Amino acid sequence: MPRKTKPIRSDIAWSTPDRIEVRGRSLPDDLLGNISLGDMAWLLLVGRMPTPQESTVFNAIAVTLVEHGITPSALAARITYAGAPESLQAAVAAGLCGLGSVFVGSTEGTAKMLYEALPPGTQGADLEKIARDVVAGYRERGQIVPGLGHPLHKPVDPRAPRLFRIAADNGFSRDYVRLEQLICAEAERTTGKMLPVNATGAIGAICCELGLPWKIVRGVGVFARAIGLVGHILEESNSPMAVEIWQRVEDEATAHIRPGAR
Amino acid sequence: MPRKTKPIRSDIAWSTPDRIEVRGRSLPDDLLGNISLGDMAWLLLVGRMPTPQESTVFNAIAVTLVEHGITPSALAARITYAGAPESLQAAVAAGLCGLGSVFVGSTEGTAKMLYEALPPGTQGADLEKIARDVVAGYRERGQIVPGLGHPLHKPVDPRAPRLFRIAADNGFSRDYVRLEQLICAEAERTTGKMLPVNATGAIGAICCELGLPWKIVRGVGVFARAIGLVGHILEESNSPMAVEIWQRVEDEATAHIRPGAR
Amino acid sequence: MPRKTKPIRSDIAWSTPDRIEVRGRSLPDDLLGNISLGDMAWLLLVGRMPTPQESTVFNAIAVTLVEHGITPSALAARITYAGAPESLQAAVAAGLCGLGSVFVGSTEGTAKMLYEALPPGTQGADLEKIARDVVAGYRERGQIVPGLGHPLHKPVDPRAPRLFRIAADNGFSRDYVRLEQLICAEAERTTGKMLPVNATGAIGAICCELGLPWKIVRGVGVFARAIGLVGHILEESNSPMAVEIWQRVEDEATAHIRPGAR
Amino acid sequence: MPRKTKPIRSDIAWSTPDRIEVRGRSLPDDLLGNISLGDMAWLLLVGRMPTPQESTVFNAIAVTLVEHGITPSALAARITYAGAPESLQAAVAAGLCGLGSVFVGSTEGTAKMLYEALPPGTQGADLEKIARDVVAGYRERGQIVPGLGHPLHKPVDPRAPRLFRIAADNGFSRDYVRLEQLICAEAERTTGKMLPVNATGAIGAICCELGLPWKIVRGVGVFARAIGLVGHILEESNSPMAVEIWQRVEDEATAHIRPGAR
Repeated sequence: MPRKTKPIRSDIAWSTPDRIEVRGRSLPDDLLGNISLGDMAWLLLVGRMPTPQESTVFNAIAVTLVEHGITPSALAARITYAGAPESLQAAVAAGLCGLGSVFVGSTEGTAKMLYEALPPGTQGADLEKIARDVVAGYRERGQIVPGLGHPLHKPVDPRAPRLFRIAADNGFSRDYVRLEQLICAEAERTTGKMLPVNATGAIGAICCELGLPWKIVRGVGVFARAIGLVGHILEESNSPMAVEIWQRVEDEATAHIRPGAR
Repeated sequence: MPRKTKPIRSDIAWSTPDRIEVRGRSLPDDLLGNISLGDMAWLLLVGRMPTPQESTVFNAIAVTLVEHGITPSALAARITYAGAPESLQAAVAAGLCGLGSVFVGSTEGTAKMLYEALPPGTQGADLEKIARDVVAGYRERGQIVPGLGHPLHKPVDPRAPRLFRIAADNGFSRDYVRLEQLICAEAERTTGKMLPVNATGAIGAICCELGLPWKIVRGVGVFARAIGLVGHILEESNSPMAVEIWQRVEDEATAHIRPGAR
Repeated sequence: MPRKTKPIRSDIAWSTPDRIEVRGRSLPDDLLGNISLGDMAWLLLVGRMPTPQESTVFNAIAVTLVEHGITPSALAARITYAGAPESLQAAVAAGLCGLGSVFVGSTEGTAKMLYEALPPGTQGADLEKIARDVVAGYRERGQIVPGLGHPLHKPVDPRAPRLFRIAADNGFSRDYVRLEQLICAEAERTTGKMLPVNATGAIGAICCELGLPWKIVRGVGVFARAIGLVGHILEESNSPMAVEIWQRVEDEATAHIRPGAR
Repeated sequence: MPRKTKPIRSDIAWSTPDRIEVRGRSLPDDLLGNISLGDMAWLLLVGRMPTPQESTVFNAIAVTLVEHGITPSALAARITYAGAPESLQAAVAAGLCGLGSVFVGSTEGTAKMLYEALPPGTQGADLEKIARDVVAGYRERGQIVPGLGHPLHKPVDPRAPRLFRIAADNGFSRDYVRLEQLICAEAERTTGKMLPVNATGAIGAICCELGLPWKIVRGVGVFARAIGLVGHILEESNSPMAVEIWQRVEDEATAHIRPGAR
């Protein structure tokens, strides 16, 4: 008995020999020359053009994650490029592979946490109580609250207040931003540690204000960082560091067992 | 004798506890809220803010490659996501890995070809002779001229004339665009085939007009497509096709040897 | 105040101009020609040569996951190769990216579950009670017990009993294999569904018998599948299917909105 | 007019509910417990079981590339794992992405060079003349002869003579190995540099003796290194270096512009 097939369908874009439409708009006629890259990302993810306020906030979020200097993702991309300079795309891919639970992926953790604590459409919630419950839940499970604290940026991650300011100026500072700030305060109170909302926490909260599904909040960081990685690869091609890093690490890592190393 | 170490240095960005600077600008104070994602990419790659004309042309180029429906890269990302939905970043990475010599990477091939044929700063070159020589060289080596022809978009890839129009309107249609068009005409003349400049050919030529190094021209397509892939992953999470594709292909591919398949 | 550096150290291998040692053995003199690829993997992960029994069981586990025909990982690798045939390594990488929680990664889930339920060294445990508690825990959390059930292989995944047989014949069928089978029976009893131990469940359990850390159990499937993916890429280069799959999917997926599609 | 579909077909493996066959053999009944991982790779790539001699040589080749200490691929995998420990497969993928033209990929370059210079089946060729022509060709094109020289292993890469010895002992040292050695001698003569055949050169030549297609010679290195990367990830999870490397590099790389760095 043959398997019954299911339909395969996509509503993002289609092409004919002389036409290309994306989200219901002609790519050559309506979009090229008229839409910026960041707004194109919004169009794809939301299905409509952003308002000017949405555009400002969404571009700010994406810009935040493009570049943070020599990050692990930049290192992985540079080291990969040194071995396969003919495959720039693979170097970018290698750099992206590490944007998981520890670094950029915490945007997703924050957005998921906030949506679960405060489902979209909730009215008149007791945000302080929710914040206490959320933090207590993480403590019970022995988990770290996502989006808080930063190894370098203390006592404040300077990106977070600026993002909250931009969100507020554009009408996107409501219950999710407030809840995130209350969770931060509660986490600091119960742990006694300095745990400022970091850039990924602010982004997670603002993505909730914008109504983006938590499943692709991490994606904003992923495509933003892809831009930064191309910048690092360009610098690596002109002023390389990968081989030097490799050789220094190899020398040091094996000095305790390598004959003649001392 | 210990190896002599070389310095490790990056000029892209730096951070201190309360500051983050990218290309000499404060990320929180100067960039967030004031720069769009596409312009941020230009800033990273070129090291200065774009002019309005550069911004329009560069954003148009990047937007062109974000989305072309169900591409191989979108398929690879969707299929990967089906197996590892907890690693969105790895699904994007998988999709990017195929942006090589056959698809998006031909932007790089075009830019390299044009820069080699017409080194930056050349004055008064005989572009028609150069075009003949370039095409003859590819024919001699049995190679395909990059950036020409498209399996679907015939007789014209509608993105190319639009991009050339945008470039011209903003003062970026000079010798490289002209040379690309002459190479196209010469290739069509000598092969007798319909080989319109495709989107990647137009982008390669315009990147030369913009002065971008050929080594990272492919990178513009890579980060642009990363945006499109996040859009496909969002759709896959709501309306999946990956498992159905897999099962159909498996059924058909092995029907000739699988007992009971008929 | 400069940051205090920590030492960087690796005990896996070292090289000098005329020597290469891996896990304390000369690669050229002791290993090449004397060790098979599977045993080399054991040496790396465990730090000593396997006994003949360990070798048989470990190679069987790894061989199990090399190949299962047209899997999602094989599709992703083939589609990626079609776009970047000059980067075989990136096509393999793309195929591996999807070996996450849904497919091969469930070996890890099983091993982690078993180690947590029955910490190494436990004597005289009541395995039936543990099995009931484990299944009840998954049901309470609304999670799926890893390593059970298969969309195709019903009522039995033929790899599982064979692996359990090989493990038993070589002295590696003790409490972890027994517990896995009890968990399977309990899950079938409480759900009323047919949920046979699948290949990844058997592998997870046997990896516990072998004492492999759960953190790298998934890794055995990852390097095994890398072998299978190279086989698929070879076939793709001789007898391609990627472009045909792409075009069929694109045609069907957009037929409902594409002008002239019907 | 609808596109005419082409058949999709694979001859590697098939499954039914109770059977799995790979290359015409029952995976559970014939292969598991009876074939080692390395021989399974040969079966997949060649389509038949290896002879004992082929098995020895092929396993030796694969074992050679598993591990070389702290390589760029190991670094990329470790750094990626630090950011996404929940996605071991993505860390392995990131490590593989750099096995391109500079490092492991040179096995492919060597095999391609040798097959092109000496097509399979050639009888009585003047190998010395061919070697001179090959080297002269690379010099003319300004390219580096693949498979020669090593930054560390001088004057001899100890893996190469050992591999050549194993190949000779098993009847696989004929024209391709001889030609590779002649090319090495000619390259050293014409450049005046010490350019010993390195491990990848020896592997490329021996793969030609074994009749493996050049297109997947790189693949042997890719799956072999996947094993090594899992070993590095295990060590990284127990004894991490990635974060320390990152912080050292970041500190040094930006010290020239970072306020307060000195």
